[in-house]
Amino acid sequence: MSHQSEVLVIGAGLAGLSAARSLTDRGHTVIVLEARDRVGGRLEGGVLDGQPIELGGTWIGEGHSRMYDLISTLGLSTFRTWNDDGELLVDLGGRQSRMGARKGAVPKFSPFSLADLFQGLTRFQRLARSVDPRQPWAHRKAAVWDGQTYETWIRRNLRTEAGRAYFRVTAEAIYAADASDLSLLHALFYTASNGDLETLVAVDKGAQQDRVVGGSVRIAETLATGLDVRLGRPVTAVAQDDDGATVTTRTGDSYTAKQVIVAIPPTLAGRIHYVPLLPAWRDQLSQRVPAGTVTKCFASYPTPFWRDDGLNGQAVSDCGPVKITFDVSPPDAGIGILMGFVEGGDGRTWQRLPDDHRRAQVLECFRRYFGAAASDPHDYVEKDWSAEEFTRGCYGAHFAPGVWTSYGSVLREPVDRIHWAGAEYAAEWSGYMEGAVRSGRSTADEVHDAL
Amino acid sequence: MSHQSEVLVIGAGLAGLSAARSLTDRGHTVIVLEARDRVGGRLEGGVLDGQPIELGGTWIGEGHSRMYDLISTLGLSTFRTWNDDGELLVDLGGRQSRMGARKGAVPKFSPFSLADLFQGLTRFQRLARSVDPRQPWAHRKAAVWDGQTYETWIRRNLRTEAGRAYFRVTAEAIYAADASDLSLLHALFYTASNGDLETLVAVDKGAQQDRVVGGSVRIAETLATGLDVRLGRPVTAVAQDDDGATVTTRTGDSYTAKQVIVAIPPTLAGRIHYVPLLPAWRDQLSQRVPAGTVTKCFASYPTPFWRDDGLNGQAVSDCGPVKITFDVSPPDAGIGILMGFVEGGDGRTWQRLPDDHRRAQVLECFRRYFGAAASDPHDYVEKDWSAEEFTRGCYGAHFAPGVWTSYGSVLREPVDRIHWAGAEYAAEWSGYMEGAVRSGRSTADEVHDAL
Repeated sequence: MSHQSEVLVIGAGLAGLSAARSLTDRGHTVIVLEARDRVGGRLEGGVLDGQPIELGGTWIGEGHSRMYDLISTLGLSTFRTWNDDGELLVDLGGRQSRMGARKGAVPKFSPFSLADLFQGLTRFQRLARSVDPRQPWAHRKAAVWDGQTYETWIRRNLRTEAGRAYFRVTAEAIYAADASDLSLLHALFYTASNGDLETLVAVDKGAQQDRVVGGSVRIAETLATGLDVRLGRPVTAVAQDDDGATVTTRTGDSYTAKQVIVAIPPTLAGRIHYVPLLPAWRDQLSQRVPAGTVTKCFASYPTPFWRDDGLNGQAVSDCGPVKITFDVSPPDAGIGILMGFVEGGDGRTWQRLPDDHRRAQVLECFRRYFGAAASDPHDYVEKDWSAEEFTRGCYGAHFAPGVWTSYGSVLREPVDRIHWAGAEYAAEWSGYMEGAVRSGRSTADEVHDAL
Repeated sequence: MSHQSEVLVIGAGLAGLSAARSLTDRGHTVIVLEARDRVGGRLEGGVLDGQPIELGGTWIGEGHSRMYDLISTLGLSTFRTWNDDGELLVDLGGRQSRMGARKGAVPKFSPFSLADLFQGLTRFQRLARSVDPRQPWAHRKAAVWDGQTYETWIRRNLRTEAGRAYFRVTAEAIYAADASDLSLLHALFYTASNGDLETLVAVDKGAQQDRVVGGSVRIAETLATGLDVRLGRPVTAVAQDDDGATVTTRTGDSYTAKQVIVAIPPTLAGRIHYVPLLPAWRDQLSQRVPAGTVTKCFASYPTPFWRDDGLNGQAVSDCGPVKITFDVSPPDAGIGILMGFVEGGDGRTWQRLPDDHRRAQVLECFRRYFGAAASDPHDYVEKDWSAEEFTRGCYGAHFAPGVWTSYGSVLREPVDRIHWAGAEYAAEWSGYMEGAVRSGRSTADEVHDAL
């Protein structure tokens, strides 16, 4: 079968849907081809103990202005992440302490470690502020910063184990990758793109501030309403010539259009068969932007019992496999749900264990942080995003050393009728829903101009 | 159409052909599926001024015992790379000097730079010798070495610009990537796998010692004789179940077998559609092993005039785009042919220039090294391996920081009926024809045992 529209969008994640909505609103005909049998991409709803949970992207935060507007426009509402009413558990170097949950609160480090952490944060922030996230490769020190890993910077600039642990754990939490995997320039770009390091890790006034009632996938589902989205259509080929573009799916359908928006993660975009071939540099770029490694693990309990202990369900540890946890109980706290991230190098080892070993290791972390009651959940579920055929890793792509300086300038560059969109392509709020929506809309502008 | 054999080999490069030959010799039925309309993969023959040239892999060197045996068995012969009868041109920091071409010869650096270079080489060799190329991730310092770039090591361990330039240029020459792109652990693994750094860069008693009369592609062509190789069959899908495996090609053919050997570069192997899906860690590995960036540029002249000046046609420079050259004239020196590599970051910028600009920049390098006569070649040709659909970069894959320690242990691990072969999978002589042949044969043993 053959189908025709002015624009084809590949991928019904937030970027693709935002692009499609923006173009449809301007009167263009748009078909969205989605590989899965659902919309949302890295936003996915699940159920635990009868309660909706977010298997993928969860939070909206400080500065995510397009998201708050969009949620409001779509008739959805948000609620606060459980935070201020309890303390955060810090478990570093085998010692546990608690700290206030407000942005700017200080961990109970030794004075020496604290001084080290502050000078490190100050130094890192100063570098990040000097990077233009629209073109990190243009910084006069770009080659030097892109020639080293974030881990190298941490080792050189932090002197205490606690200070280093803080930077490493936040790297895992932010990138779902180890500091060793990342270019320093990428860490600086990403931080500049998202305000500052504190905003990235904070809840109130930070990137984890709010959740959507009913789950974040409601945003994608509502946004898709009225759009021409074709589910179950994994795209295998994109051909273009002087007359237009033809997109073929694994199901054998063929779609023609004037312009195409590829709104899937770059590592998957590189697996499509393009005719004519993509330029050498574009293909080499997509060989170099791997997705992170993260599994989300959820355990449910009759109540959020940690709240009674004065804890807010958030833990930060340098001892895995779960190093970061959140309270993701429903707004009415009818039951308690803990969510733990298994990320980066830990995740790559832990993934390969049998089901019961994986679960036991996760619950042992929960017990260490929140006590014996955490050992015996009512229900338990995991979501490994690297095992997903149509994502192959979360939260998003990271850039290894050398990639921003060698390939950054072609990242957002269209190839004739082919345009790119996604959280990875955003200069502002890269990696977040906010970035995905901004990228989708800005690519829609580009396509509108090209039509 | 459906076809049946005991084993399917995907890719008729040296690894795939070696595996197929080994299994065929033991009485197994084997079909080799090759995407291109020729065999050889990264070995390809071309013609310049009526003379055969090697557009891809060229040299056989010290220690490549399987290759010398194979060449002899196939009835082919080798000849020496032009080397000893002239000096090598060194062009570093804007100053030119000449040095003897024998292994162990010393560049005309200042005493201070020379001392720096020697201490750096000694230190690097000591580290490389301690790495087991069969399992670099198992070294007790693997995490530290894999957490930094090779560039970081160079900056820390070399103090002079000349010393650093030497290491950076050799990195480009060996990996077709910048030192910034590489994990230090990868550089150590690769060096250990190939003897030592001097062997990697040397001609006599080194990796560039000999060439094959008629061109290296003759090895692949002769090896393929009598094998069941099906050309023009790009593989799109590999399915396996309890009964066997089914391989589908873009042309719509389908092939069934008991075992499958995927003998294509890892970044391309990751683009095949596997049913069931490859495990998460295998897919994430193939997202993280990009191919290098290299274009080979050939210019022909009535005679190898540089020989009359006492030069052997080899130049090493820190000023690109061409930083390394070789004399690849035919054995009878009936004409002169210079070949220059444009690699790594230089290559990524230069690739995007118009044809005439690219050529002019290359010839300007040749002129700088070999004089005015080099400016006006009789013929000129380029081969950009990153633009090749069925290679997408040469010489081979490199590992960015974090990859060996996170994914190294699964690199050579079969996934049920699917086995891997190629120069990237070799523990010994990784990245060379020798490694490809060893990997192909060792995977053939693995498959033979599984049949």
